[in-house]
Amino acid sequence: MSKKISIAIDAMGGDNSPDKTIKGIGIFIDKNKSKNDFVLNIFGKNNEILKKLSKYKIQSDSINIINSETVVSDEETPLTAVKNSKNTSMWNCIQHQLEGKSDISLSAGNTGVLLVISRMILKMMNEINKPALAGLWPNEKGLNVVLDLGANIECNEQNLIDFAEMGSALYKSLVPNEKPKVSLLNVGSEEIKGTEMLKKASQRLKELSNDDNFIYNGYIEGNNIMNGDSNVIITDGFTGNVALKTAEGTAKFITNNLKSSLSKLSIIFSFFSLKKFKEKLDPRKYNGAIFLGLNGPVVKSHGGIDHVGFYHSIDLCYKIIKGNLMSEIKKNLKHSKINT
Amino acid sequence: MSKKISIAIDAMGGDNSPDKTIKGIGIFIDKNKSKNDFVLNIFGKNNEILKKLSKYKIQSDSINIINSETVVSDEETPLTAVKNSKNTSMWNCIQHQLEGKSDISLSAGNTGVLLVISRMILKMMNEINKPALAGLWPNEKGLNVVLDLGANIECNEQNLIDFAEMGSALYKSLVPNEKPKVSLLNVGSEEIKGTEMLKKASQRLKELSNDDNFIYNGYIEGNNIMNGDSNVIITDGFTGNVALKTAEGTAKFITNNLKSSLSKLSIIFSFFSLKKFKEKLDPRKYNGAIFLGLNGPVVKSHGGIDHVGFYHSIDLCYKIIKGNLMSEIKKNLKHSKINT
Repeated sequence: MSKKISIAIDAMGGDNSPDKTIKGIGIFIDKNKSKNDFVLNIFGKNNEILKKLSKYKIQSDSINIINSETVVSDEETPLTAVKNSKNTSMWNCIQHQLEGKSDISLSAGNTGVLLVISRMILKMMNEINKPALAGLWPNEKGLNVVLDLGANIECNEQNLIDFAEMGSALYKSLVPNEKPKVSLLNVGSEEIKGTEMLKKASQRLKELSNDDNFIYNGYIEGNNIMNGDSNVIITDGFTGNVALKTAEGTAKFITNNLKSSLSKLSIIFSFFSLKKFKEKLDPRKYNGAIFLGLNGPVVKSHGGIDHVGFYHSIDLCYKIIKGNLMSEIKKNLKHSKINT
Repeated sequence: MSKKISIAIDAMGGDNSPDKTIKGIGIFIDKNKSKNDFVLNIFGKNNEILKKLSKYKIQSDSINIINSETVVSDEETPLTAVKNSKNTSMWNCIQHQLEGKSDISLSAGNTGVLLVISRMILKMMNEINKPALAGLWPNEKGLNVVLDLGANIECNEQNLIDFAEMGSALYKSLVPNEKPKVSLLNVGSEEIKGTEMLKKASQRLKELSNDDNFIYNGYIEGNNIMNGDSNVIITDGFTGNVALKTAEGTAKFITNNLKSSLSKLSIIFSFFSLKKFKEKLDPRKYNGAIFLGLNGPVVKSHGGIDHVGFYHSIDLCYKIIKGNLMSEIKKNLKHSKINT
């Protein structure tokens, strides 16, 4: 029997936790009851977690509770976190992972603190200069991996190459039957467009493009991110963060306007088709930003998401480990270092 | 009688021109037939323009055709434009404006060429280091002005201050009864977020904030661009271009999915409410990017837009001059220079 997939879950972080985290765990357990290949290590206040498990009638041999009395507060900043967050539920997740007892950690808590303590405890991979936050976006043909979403507001060309190698590895681990197709986000698709730094990165990606690691598709403009021609979109953390949030804001603006435009009668007549539409574009399905470049993956769930969104981030953790993310990353980084 | 608003229109640029430009002119003439305060100077091949005016039954004393035998080709680059585009319909618009015979120029042709020849002929304002492209976006309460949309992929803090002063002037000329509320696009709203350059620009905008020129609202994140709390959004041309195009792509993705989700029956029952929804969010209403920082305003219509979109960009030109854009810009730039 092969080793079980072991996920460290901070049950205390984010809004309405541990209610939403435990309910999310309940959905995951329920959807995977036929499987026996995972363990969920739940970190938080023992009593509270037991109470919620009983409240939501969750019973499973795949659950393992590890008591952590304290919680990272929302007011904590990355600067004060190292001093104040020791032995919190979040800290203990990462520590558990460092000790090899979990393969991946998941938290819906304070993002800045999670990034700082993950980096401090797990340490960066030798080959990587800057870690990155990768996110999932829908596209016309399936799934996009987009990075960096804000871990580094300034990047050089080597950082972008590393992001391309790691993002492609993430894509392969999540969608094993499809090839990663990398594009660099730019203000035009012609070679003369963009900064000197982008031009150098593009030249290097062209040299690295191959069938094993990733196909390089050249520059992509913002309006084509979701057309599905590329599925790994590379950019610096400033641009990526603005693009992601602008897409979120635009989606909200449009759906708000759609709701206020539709009459009650047409809502009734459109109920099932609108439901289908909402299900397809449900942002909860894409919940979970993956912190890449450390000696182990860490997933950040949106803090304000509900239990369904939290379930999707547990599922993401499971898929990442099932898809051998770390060995894919090592394979890809070896490729770019050999070809230097 | 005060001087008439005089608009130079390149009838030949963009897809399906001069059909769409002349049809757009027809809509403008029709909607403003009670007014006698404007002249449309139409540049292009005389015969072709006369044929289209007759085809679309457009007759008006406010039309003035100025023959230009050549047209800027789509293949022209900003580098070859100066040599090859002399006496084209586009060039002659800007030249007409320089000679004081038009107040503003409008073209749906090649963007790069329009920017280069506008800058060469009209010259930059003394107070301005870099010109900017400003665009219009809908927000929950009305209208946003967003700049830069791609004229400058790299900016310093002084450029951003100039953009804020010019963007606020544009907002005042378009929406005279509302106060311009400026925000800087960033990856978070807290003061510690962003690059050093953004922090310096933010500090300076705080000092300049007042009731006469603009109120500074601090940083804004991408998801809040359209919430209406701020109406002048300032960013560098790289980020602005990516944000605008990402918003366009997201809107298209959602409406495509909505269309394919709705059953025929529900489309019939939702017809009028969906029509209302589409009208409210019609991107043609926001057609026209305004080139700011030269000794006269130039408007770029989207090349692929139809006649209705082109009409909206003529209307934008009319409003800009009616709202005294250039004197608003001079007033605002005086304010920021005095307070240096």
